[in-house]
Amino acid sequence: MPKIANTYRFFLSHDSIQSGATSDADIVHQWGRVLRIQPGQRLLLLDGCGVGFEVDITHIDKKHARWIIMHSSQMAGEPQLHITVASAIIRPERFEWLLQKATEIGVSRFVPVIAERSRGEVESAKGKHERWQRIIREAAEQSCRAILPELTAPVQLRSLTLPASAACMWLHEGHGTQPLRQHLQQSYRSLWIVTGPEGGFSDDETAWMATQTGWFASGLGQRILRAETAPLVAATIALAAHGEFDGA
Amino acid sequence: MPKIANTYRFFLSHDSIQSGATSDADIVHQWGRVLRIQPGQRLLLLDGCGVGFEVDITHIDKKHARWIIMHSSQMAGEPQLHITVASAIIRPERFEWLLQKATEIGVSRFVPVIAERSRGEVESAKGKHERWQRIIREAAEQSCRAILPELTAPVQLRSLTLPASAACMWLHEGHGTQPLRQHLQQSYRSLWIVTGPEGGFSDDETAWMATQTGWFASGLGQRILRAETAPLVAATIALAAHGEFDGA
Repeated sequence: MPKIANTYRFFLSHDSIQSGATSDADIVHQWGRVLRIQPGQRLLLLDGCGVGFEVDITHIDKKHARWIIMHSSQMAGEPQLHITVASAIIRPERFEWLLQKATEIGVSRFVPVIAERSRGEVESAKGKHERWQRIIREAAEQSCRAILPELTAPVQLRSLTLPASAACMWLHEGHGTQPLRQHLQQSYRSLWIVTGPEGGFSDDETAWMATQTGWFASGLGQRILRAETAPLVAATIALAAHGEFDGA
Repeated sequence: MPKIANTYRFFLSHDSIQSGATSDADIVHQWGRVLRIQPGQRLLLLDGCGVGFEVDITHIDKKHARWIIMHSSQMAGEPQLHITVASAIIRPERFEWLLQKATEIGVSRFVPVIAERSRGEVESAKGKHERWQRIIREAAEQSCRAILPELTAPVQLRSLTLPASAACMWLHEGHGTQPLRQHLQQSYRSLWIVTGPEGGFSDDETAWMATQTGWFASGLGQRILRAETAPLVAATIALAAHGEFDGA
């Protein structure tokens, strides 16, 4: 499949792609007004689950776009390692930044976590699901992800349920932690990274995770990383350890 | 030295620390009004070159603060690997974000680069030196850096001059690059990371770097990272390869 510039990559539902038409106002506006796409333009439409469709636009007006499918194939480019970032909800612009950057580097799932010290931010997160999904989708398009990262509803820290096959580490400053590197030598396909809000997890939460969960506590060295930086650094290192960022 | 919370860490000039007093309006405002520091409060003042001074505040009013030095020592916490990020100037909020995040993770020097496709941003960067320095300083205080990262004036790409002892890689999408990992197996103490603007380096610039500089071209895998994300990911991987983020 010839490479299509990331400007012309879009996630749409599988059904919508197959139907050969959309009247989604945002998409039609983006295509017609912002990118000034004309009939004949080739696009790459992604179904979010790993299949890409090369399509040729046949018609576009202010409200509708239509296309014909020229070719479809399984897309490459997804990390071997499936990472879930379960981050406490933090200040909106920082949380959104984390969603964008972590999508770019290859994180596969986001679970917004309600922690004791994120209570102040939980209110501001209400009604944000669609906005967060859009941020993830745009970052996934721009960075050539093949699969659209998943975003769950917010979950209480103590209600997090992990698949048995996943490794899980929680990021923690201070004593009792093991170097990240140690965890990364283990072999697993799915990694959860649980990270706290500004101010960190509470003592209660820390004690609960240390004794009740079986998760590994992991530090990130001597410097103090912000709440939104720590999970990005941890995910980068984990992906790098699995050979991502290595292709030319 | 007992640990002083990062809220109470500040970079000041060596002379100012030794003089035992400041009338710097920003600092006095921050201490007196924002943090409501009282006489008797212990602070950690950092000279930016690796020496930390524990001081006790003896007087603070609206315009002045005075202290006595209780103890001084060489601070730990700096990476073994000295990284210079020579990033093309990009959109202001993204460039500032890069300065903040790269300071947190442990980058030691920033060289703003004027590249062909960053011409549009160069104008907006004028007069920003102080603002950028403040962003770096605040990030360095917050993240417990011992040495204040250096910020140079903007430099034309072709005028970059590297010390002979430094390794240098430029980040590049596409063919002819080697995996980052390959470079990181070499042994060096100083690494330059040269990275382009939105839209990448021009063909001319690419050809020049490939043939005239002796720098290594390095890719970051199959996904496309934004201009501000790529150097952060590269620096994270390089620091991790040198054992940073490993301490508990």
